[in-house]
Amino acid sequence: MQETILTSTQNPRVKQLLALQQKSTERRRTGLFVVEGQRELQHCLEAGYEIDTVFYCPELTVNSENSEYSDYPSIHHLQVNPYIYGKIAYRGGTEGIVATIKARRHTLDDLTLGANPLVIVLESVEKPGNLGAVLRSADAAQADAVIVCDPLTDLYNPNLIRASIGAIFTVPTAVCTTTDCIAFLKKRGIRILTAQLQDSHLYYDTDMRCGTALVMGTESTGLTQPWRDAADAHIRIPMLGRLDSLNVSVSAAILLFEAVRQRQS
Amino acid sequence: MQETILTSTQNPRVKQLLALQQKSTERRRTGLFVVEGQRELQHCLEAGYEIDTVFYCPELTVNSENSEYSDYPSIHHLQVNPYIYGKIAYRGGTEGIVATIKARRHTLDDLTLGANPLVIVLESVEKPGNLGAVLRSADAAQADAVIVCDPLTDLYNPNLIRASIGAIFTVPTAVCTTTDCIAFLKKRGIRILTAQLQDSHLYYDTDMRCGTALVMGTESTGLTQPWRDAADAHIRIPMLGRLDSLNVSVSAAILLFEAVRQRQS
Repeated sequence: MQETILTSTQNPRVKQLLALQQKSTERRRTGLFVVEGQRELQHCLEAGYEIDTVFYCPELTVNSENSEYSDYPSIHHLQVNPYIYGKIAYRGGTEGIVATIKARRHTLDDLTLGANPLVIVLESVEKPGNLGAVLRSADAAQADAVIVCDPLTDLYNPNLIRASIGAIFTVPTAVCTTTDCIAFLKKRGIRILTAQLQDSHLYYDTDMRCGTALVMGTESTGLTQPWRDAADAHIRIPMLGRLDSLNVSVSAAILLFEAVRQRQS
Repeated sequence: MQETILTSTQNPRVKQLLALQQKSTERRRTGLFVVEGQRELQHCLEAGYEIDTVFYCPELTVNSENSEYSDYPSIHHLQVNPYIYGKIAYRGGTEGIVATIKARRHTLDDLTLGANPLVIVLESVEKPGNLGAVLRSADAAQADAVIVCDPLTDLYNPNLIRASIGAIFTVPTAVCTTTDCIAFLKKRGIRILTAQLQDSHLYYDTDMRCGTALVMGTESTGLTQPWRDAADAHIRIPMLGRLDSLNVSVSAAILLFEAVRQRQS
């Protein structure tokens, strides 16, 4: 069978791919999102996601024969020329693979937590790159879950996937309201530690060895009152310098690895 | 005196400003760099840097009367219209202030370390944003210095300044070769802890209470052999998940705050 090679940005499949990268409304409408790069796609498939379509550019593809997605029926594969690949590649990578993937549900009910869970909760996170970076650290610390409350971005934003380097697929993730999240944690007896500067203890003086949720707000406005009220303890990272804040993904990593230290020491 | 309002991107001063933002060669040639935003400029002046020229747009400037730079002789001030400000503003801020600043030396000899120093060393760091993020964490942890060995970026890259949110001005910083840095640390009896996965101890089992340099390489290639050979100990952050690396700025923050914890506990 002669394979068609897509050569125009006006091709409907190419246009849809670009719309999926650029618009969360298009991602919601279709239930699809975009993954770029061999490594990220491998993590995505290992996590059980289902491919919609693979767009590949043979001139740029490395070792695709060894990869899981090359086993997909060829109906799911569309070949593009290097010009089109340059248009659809979100980051400047040269791996020659972009795929559309079927989205999943990310509800609290879908989470399976271990016996002594370590959870990160982010409220109203704005920047997709920050959420992606938190997921990357959560993977490294083997957190049980990342829960995103009342988010201002969707989980399948390309900047988020890129910053997570695939951790969006390796870390169990749920999206919910603050009210539902607090109820979920309370029901399971998970201690709620809220990161806030006022009325707080130093994070390393706080016990994180039992089931723990580390809850963080936005850099600009911090956590909402329901979280402050629901907290079992308020914790802070000491700000010893001249500036007054850390990046949220850096703060999350410091707290997560303190939990790792306490649990492994 | 009637003040001239710059209205063209062809104005030589505007052209030079844009060149300083875009080209490290132009920064080196002139000994100038660009700072944008009131907060960053305030940190810069508090650190004793000298203004070359302030470009301001009155329609967008907030509270400039209260700021240190408004006291500078008016010969150093150039008014621009909102169109030109849109062209010279590197980030989408609306504070109406961009300034060219005279660069400083950043040699090892210029560093003044405390009695029990905590130093971050980055070898061959590539991304200005990563270096800026490390500086921000170094400020929060009140590190004595950040030393950059054989860098692939200059300290006055606009992305670096932006990511540092001004920490480039609050944290003492030196640029040197790996050879000179090792000699500097050895001479002062500062323990060299290199971050590497092979043959290493868990970072939280390593004593950081005495004079300590935390040394990190690039994400892609790690540290060079001279650092590994010079190390007093090799340390690693445990990678407990499916992915195999952390962002260098996240790793730096985890290590820095472990030193803070040990020193304050």
